[in-house]
Amino acid sequence: MINAVGREIPDEILKRYGKEGFMGSCYRDNKPYKKASVSSHGMLDPNRKKVVSSIKEALEKCGAHDGMVFSFHHHFRDGDYIVNMVMEAAAEMGLKDLTVCASSLGAAHRVVAELIEKGIVTGIQTSGIRDKIGEAVSYGKLKTPAIIRSHGGRVRAIEEGDVHIDIAFIGAPTADEYGNLRAIGGKSDCGVLSYSVVDAKYADYTVAITDTLVPFPNFPPSISMTDVDFVCVVDEIGNPDKIASNVIRMTQDVRELKMAEDCAKVMAATPYFRDGFSFQTGGGGASLAVTRFLEPLMSERDIKMSFAIGGITRPMCELMEKGFIRTIVDAQCFDKTAIESISKDPRHYEISTSEYANPLNKGAFVNKLDFVILGALEIDKEFNVNVTTGSDGVLRGAPGGHPDTAAGSKCSIIVAPLIRSRIPTVVDRVVNVTTPGEAVDVLVTDYGIAVNPRRQDLIEYLTKAKLPVVKIQELLDMAKSIAGEPEPIKFEDEIVGIIEGRDGTIMDVVRRVKPQTTIHEIL
Amino acid sequence: MINAVGREIPDEILKRYGKEGFMGSCYRDNKPYKKASVSSHGMLDPNRKKVVSSIKEALEKCGAHDGMVFSFHHHFRDGDYIVNMVMEAAAEMGLKDLTVCASSLGAAHRVVAELIEKGIVTGIQTSGIRDKIGEAVSYGKLKTPAIIRSHGGRVRAIEEGDVHIDIAFIGAPTADEYGNLRAIGGKSDCGVLSYSVVDAKYADYTVAITDTLVPFPNFPPSISMTDVDFVCVVDEIGNPDKIASNVIRMTQDVRELKMAEDCAKVMAATPYFRDGFSFQTGGGGASLAVTRFLEPLMSERDIKMSFAIGGITRPMCELMEKGFIRTIVDAQCFDKTAIESISKDPRHYEISTSEYANPLNKGAFVNKLDFVILGALEIDKEFNVNVTTGSDGVLRGAPGGHPDTAAGSKCSIIVAPLIRSRIPTVVDRVVNVTTPGEAVDVLVTDYGIAVNPRRQDLIEYLTKAKLPVVKIQELLDMAKSIAGEPEPIKFEDEIVGIIEGRDGTIMDVVRRVKPQTTIHEIL
Repeated sequence: MINAVGREIPDEILKRYGKEGFMGSCYRDNKPYKKASVSSHGMLDPNRKKVVSSIKEALEKCGAHDGMVFSFHHHFRDGDYIVNMVMEAAAEMGLKDLTVCASSLGAAHRVVAELIEKGIVTGIQTSGIRDKIGEAVSYGKLKTPAIIRSHGGRVRAIEEGDVHIDIAFIGAPTADEYGNLRAIGGKSDCGVLSYSVVDAKYADYTVAITDTLVPFPNFPPSISMTDVDFVCVVDEIGNPDKIASNVIRMTQDVRELKMAEDCAKVMAATPYFRDGFSFQTGGGGASLAVTRFLEPLMSERDIKMSFAIGGITRPMCELMEKGFIRTIVDAQCFDKTAIESISKDPRHYEISTSEYANPLNKGAFVNKLDFVILGALEIDKEFNVNVTTGSDGVLRGAPGGHPDTAAGSKCSIIVAPLIRSRIPTVVDRVVNVTTPGEAVDVLVTDYGIAVNPRRQDLIEYLTKAKLPVVKIQELLDMAKSIAGEPEPIKFEDEIVGIIEGRDGTIMDVVRRVKPQTTIHEIL
Repeated sequence: MINAVGREIPDEILKRYGKEGFMGSCYRDNKPYKKASVSSHGMLDPNRKKVVSSIKEALEKCGAHDGMVFSFHHHFRDGDYIVNMVMEAAAEMGLKDLTVCASSLGAAHRVVAELIEKGIVTGIQTSGIRDKIGEAVSYGKLKTPAIIRSHGGRVRAIEEGDVHIDIAFIGAPTADEYGNLRAIGGKSDCGVLSYSVVDAKYADYTVAITDTLVPFPNFPPSISMTDVDFVCVVDEIGNPDKIASNVIRMTQDVRELKMAEDCAKVMAATPYFRDGFSFQTGGGGASLAVTRFLEPLMSERDIKMSFAIGGITRPMCELMEKGFIRTIVDAQCFDKTAIESISKDPRHYEISTSEYANPLNKGAFVNKLDFVILGALEIDKEFNVNVTTGSDGVLRGAPGGHPDTAAGSKCSIIVAPLIRSRIPTVVDRVVNVTTPGEAVDVLVTDYGIAVNPRRQDLIEYLTKAKLPVVKIQELLDMAKSIAGEPEPIKFEDEIVGIIEGRDGTIMDVVRRVKPQTTIHEIL
């Protein structure tokens, strides 16, 4: 079938996964559905203990066997040690046919790429799929298609039973011996454990891995003892210094700063920019820089933000400290300042990823967002955005909260340069659709600002504010005139990845890249 | 079958409910089970609103119809307005064959008793069943047997799907328009919303009823917007002045104070009375008074309590303020001091009732309890305790957390006078078993202290401490010599109530009382 973003989804895929193609952002609104029935086991004997001496012992006590699904969170990002520790222990035990269901995977997880090559890991379900893992999948090394979801979509998938987690592993900065877990107060803090909340509730078994055991009760917990089976103490669970990676960076680039300033001006030109507005921004250079341009505009109008959400970084924490933000709700700390802030500032709250973005709960924070600033690897004439595959067709990105916030917010703004390393961002047709154009309102580039024609109201506001509004076709023409017509990527027929819409319908499929394709290094 | 506490449970009942008789406290420990599959519906449309203008509108939007199960919390105790408001609205709409699944019911809910008489309410599932409702059920007015559960057992029953809640109603002291609910900051605060956490997660629909609408986001929420469908604003949800009822009282009675002091001495005689011990006490006169006798004993040994739990009252909060308690974990505020304390003291935490006492989660607080002080309407030679039916056979009590804390704690202490209004507390055979004797360790009376023979260790400790340890048979003999042999109660065959064990097995059945039986007014 051809889905609502014009992508052909093979019937065989729809049938195999029991899915529909993407039908529009509100297709499943208010439609009844059933959540998965959770398998559990009671703790009636007060004398039974939870502490185990090694990951191997935890795996054994959970009855680990071939074919299982293991889940992980990525709050440590490039500093994560947990995935490799667990997967190495599993491989040493001779387990095979394993699926890694992580909230994201990245450069820290080359062990997973190796286990894909060895045929030990045969399934991947994730948001981010980068680096060696992205290449392994794109070149057809994984035995089943990788399933790529947004953060909200992952919660939905677990709750609906699209993926059944056999064992959830949670790197916990602090834990007590009964499994109350917190993300602060330890020697390797990551600030929040938002992604793992759903894993702990839906997995058959939950194993906490900590490097800091604290007295009972470790309160208030991010994950409660009521959801934890075993507590395993190791030397180190991660390196918080590596949380802020290249993906999250403060820019000094003049072009990026200009675009960031334009984003702030777009925001200020809309009626949503009023006292009590809400805001999220991504971790990319220009996105992140928007925050600093907001301050003078807010100051001028004497308005405050009701809540900032995300992906929280230093500029956001500083804006709250200065009194411009009333509340920060945090599903991921993107740097050490954010971790320090949530450790000490009572206005800075942890939320679960369901609260953040799950499209099928009864109301997530993304629905209350006024503005979100997002990046793009590519964007096409229909405003469809690709943040999953590079323009060489290789998996190198992450939907993250992109499709969730774009769908929920009143005004979603994509910020991207027209050309990156001679490769156009604005294209006729994106390699893969991550976020449907119907959820994207504005595109800010270094060559002008395009507004989705669905949003005539925004076109009026931005024009009235004398912002350089152009048609997206004009941007596309400019891109072509500068960088030329891009060469089409050569794909095999084989499907190596499935990009799910946040509601579980299928947005797009990722095909195997022919090995001769040149790999462009795109951020 | 005859169950593990020697009660005959008719096979017809076991078959009808798909149940086993009680098999012992750890019977279901670590045995796998499946939780109910939750029915829900997604909020994908960010423009959809949740605020409704009346309870009637909420009922209509939830598709209320005959035969439904409505659930409620009892944090407002005798000051609750919600149950009556909702049930009156439902009756006005002509609904019938309704089941009320409340965490407890009491004197505030005479409307429910009337609706039982009218045949509109045909099912009751609750912990407390007192006053007019207790009489209506005991005299056979309810069409189906009332199902009586402990607080932990209720969470288990909802999670296992023994009861399916169609609509959960939550009286919320504060709510924002998207359904983030808190129990403080309003005009009718109840401190916590612990009982409702499971209702909100498992009900098809959840309706918040508030008298104080606050700006979004109402954070941190006791119940998240992710579980709430509608928000209804009314004039008043309850009267916090009536939270502290007759059930929760500060005693000046010399006999009760003496027993309370003995309880504290029993505690101090055990090895569990050390730095970092944990403690819960009930709301009865003697139970509550134990707290004040602990202070000098703790002071003398220079020890602190790690956590106090419950049912929280003023004496406990004062003990924390004086530095004798590190943390209070609170599943119910029993008075206004407790509500004030949780509103301002960061060491005072709200917990869900699952975290408190659910026997089938992966580890509840009750399992970490050193001491619990509990009351009894009756206790027999096997230490089985009845807190459900009076010695006239009429329902007038509540298991509450009794069976949960007794099972989980290292040392459970029952405190009760030998005789109350000429009726013996220590009896050959309790009218109904609420808490099995195997979970009860010590009985403190005004005529001596009896220790369960299963606990030879405790007998040694108490004897060594020169406490007046007697055999329970001696207490029984004394009771009989003072009050005479009690006249047997006359019951019909009809079963009007089922007392479930906390793990969902059947502990006992309650039979219809012959109308000629005199009703003794027992506290």
